[in-house]
Amino acid sequence: MTKDYNEIAVDLHRKHGGKMATSLRHEGAVTRHELSAYYTPGVGHISSLVAENPSRLPEFTWTNNLVAVISDGSAVLGLGDIGPAGALPVMEGKALLFKYFADLDSVPIVLDCNSTEEIIETIQRIAVSFGAINLEDFAAPQCFEIEDRLRASLPIPVFHDDQHGTAVVVLAALINACKVTERDINNLNIVVTGIGAAGTAIARLIKEYAPQTNITGTGRAGTLNLADTSLNAAKRTLLEEGILEDVPNMSLADALIGADVFIGVSAPGTVTKDMVASMADDAIVMALSNPIPEIYPDEARAAGAAVICTGRSDFPNQVNNALAFPGIFRGALDNKVPQITEAHKMAAAVALAEFVQNPTADEVIPSIFEEGLSAAVAKVIT
Amino acid sequence: MTKDYNEIAVDLHRKHGGKMATSLRHEGAVTRHELSAYYTPGVGHISSLVAENPSRLPEFTWTNNLVAVISDGSAVLGLGDIGPAGALPVMEGKALLFKYFADLDSVPIVLDCNSTEEIIETIQRIAVSFGAINLEDFAAPQCFEIEDRLRASLPIPVFHDDQHGTAVVVLAALINACKVTERDINNLNIVVTGIGAAGTAIARLIKEYAPQTNITGTGRAGTLNLADTSLNAAKRTLLEEGILEDVPNMSLADALIGADVFIGVSAPGTVTKDMVASMADDAIVMALSNPIPEIYPDEARAAGAAVICTGRSDFPNQVNNALAFPGIFRGALDNKVPQITEAHKMAAAVALAEFVQNPTADEVIPSIFEEGLSAAVAKVIT
Repeated sequence: MTKDYNEIAVDLHRKHGGKMATSLRHEGAVTRHELSAYYTPGVGHISSLVAENPSRLPEFTWTNNLVAVISDGSAVLGLGDIGPAGALPVMEGKALLFKYFADLDSVPIVLDCNSTEEIIETIQRIAVSFGAINLEDFAAPQCFEIEDRLRASLPIPVFHDDQHGTAVVVLAALINACKVTERDINNLNIVVTGIGAAGTAIARLIKEYAPQTNITGTGRAGTLNLADTSLNAAKRTLLEEGILEDVPNMSLADALIGADVFIGVSAPGTVTKDMVASMADDAIVMALSNPIPEIYPDEARAAGAAVICTGRSDFPNQVNNALAFPGIFRGALDNKVPQITEAHKMAAAVALAEFVQNPTADEVIPSIFEEGLSAAVAKVIT
Repeated sequence: MTKDYNEIAVDLHRKHGGKMATSLRHEGAVTRHELSAYYTPGVGHISSLVAENPSRLPEFTWTNNLVAVISDGSAVLGLGDIGPAGALPVMEGKALLFKYFADLDSVPIVLDCNSTEEIIETIQRIAVSFGAINLEDFAAPQCFEIEDRLRASLPIPVFHDDQHGTAVVVLAALINACKVTERDINNLNIVVTGIGAAGTAIARLIKEYAPQTNITGTGRAGTLNLADTSLNAAKRTLLEEGILEDVPNMSLADALIGADVFIGVSAPGTVTKDMVASMADDAIVMALSNPIPEIYPDEARAAGAAVICTGRSDFPNQVNNALAFPGIFRGALDNKVPQITEAHKMAAAVALAEFVQNPTADEVIPSIFEEGLSAAVAKVIT
């Protein structure tokens, strides 16, 4: 399967020599007079207006429809820290998704930086060129500080999609999975394994939406707990804030016994059939490691899981960020929101969940190709 | 005239809300399978190939056709240091010219930087995202160091168009103006007034092409000379290298007596009819201050000038950078040249001059709308 995609990928990328281009908003030939208005001398007047009041940029420039997709290449797909050059094909792919699913113009920018400080200051220096910023494939835990400081310092939306796009789609899937399995989303025992960029945002967003529900985080050393002095500050904060339960050292297998929901954003094969069998009846299993999930759907189903999600397009219930980010940015730019908030993300998740007319075990989230999807999400980002 | 353009500019910019957009190179609908090749999982393979060998970026990404138009907004048109927001409409206009005249994809990037050092390091950090860099509207003398250090440190072409684009077109015009007035380009007395970004590059390129010709530079304090201790390092270097003659303090009026060629890249109304009348017979006058020239063509003609160029589209012989930069970048990317050299610029000027079949006083350079122009320039950038 993956080999096929590799071959198709090389063919398609060779054929076009890249995925994106620029184009003129102006239709047809540009006359000499129009050129003198788009460029000198006429554009000088536009520049004066914008220089006097930079908040008019979206009125006169393409920033009204423009998202920068920015990465340092430190956590690219399953490939890890491959650097900015290696990251560019992925960022250009994301620009393609923005255009295809939400008609948003998008520019991939990759950063050759050596520190969190350099990354932040570089993005601050170029940000006026864009209408919004999609951070992509930045490694945890640096990604948290990068996003926090950019959100605090920039007047345009900044959104780390690996965190929040994933979290929105997971919450949407969870809302419908609870309907399908007749559960109260405020009364769940959830185990999230892999508390990195996505895992952190997933836990935060679920807890924001369903404050009474219990979430346990696990990593390579078992359940996260405050007694573990090796935890980094980001993970410690999750425990201190009560987002994650402070659970004394247990294995993932132990933590899963009786759990309602497993959410894996970790590594292939982390979960066995026996572990799923030990969960509550009609368990909800989101095995999101990609392309190889923590457990394959047929095994999870055989072990008693009722609803199963993966990150793959060849199984039902694909948790795909492209369900969320095109509509979220579309709405943020159309409705001129200064930042994308927790309330926006929850509203996006609800909109996605409600987009599925009759949720079933095999359809807790829509397909990315469904008509009107990004518009439905965009509508609630106000 | 300018008021008209202002109104048209506001109308056109309001109508489209900006000038540029992005588009897919892929034609028609994208299937689920193709999407899995353009993005995950297929793109992961492309990323691995590029990460292993970043020189393959142009094979698999849009960098093969991509120019960044970068400015810090420190010297925007006639408006001066209006900052990055005010500069963006101009940079987006330049992106439009790149697309319209040479089918090059182009991204406007404006920089919110506080020093030459910050500008250089920021561009170095984002450069891997692009195939070539057009520096635009950076103030002199900082622009020289910025360009020099970027050219030395980056593996892609870096070209400050205010300097070199102007210089190429001026040299092209001068070559044909010499034909029209039956002069030897190696035996001229040239006065260049305004030794900033453009003036410096013009003097350097003419001297490179015609080493025997004499060029005198003038500024607000008269002719440039080494006895003037207030000269900045960039101007001093021009005198020390013999690009400019070391002429003891004379006024512009004095310097122009008997001169063959006046090249003004300075300020409106710097030159009077009397000054032109004092020049050699059939003088060549390039009054390039824009939109208001150093002297209007009718006055210069009345004072005896044979060939007159301005920066305006409503007079004959418009010295317009758009004659040069689209073809120069088109050629640089098509022919994979690592940098744009002095030899390239001279070849581009000759190609432009030769593009005019029968040079006359009213046509020493082509119009930007002539078919095949950028291709003719691109061909010689090898």
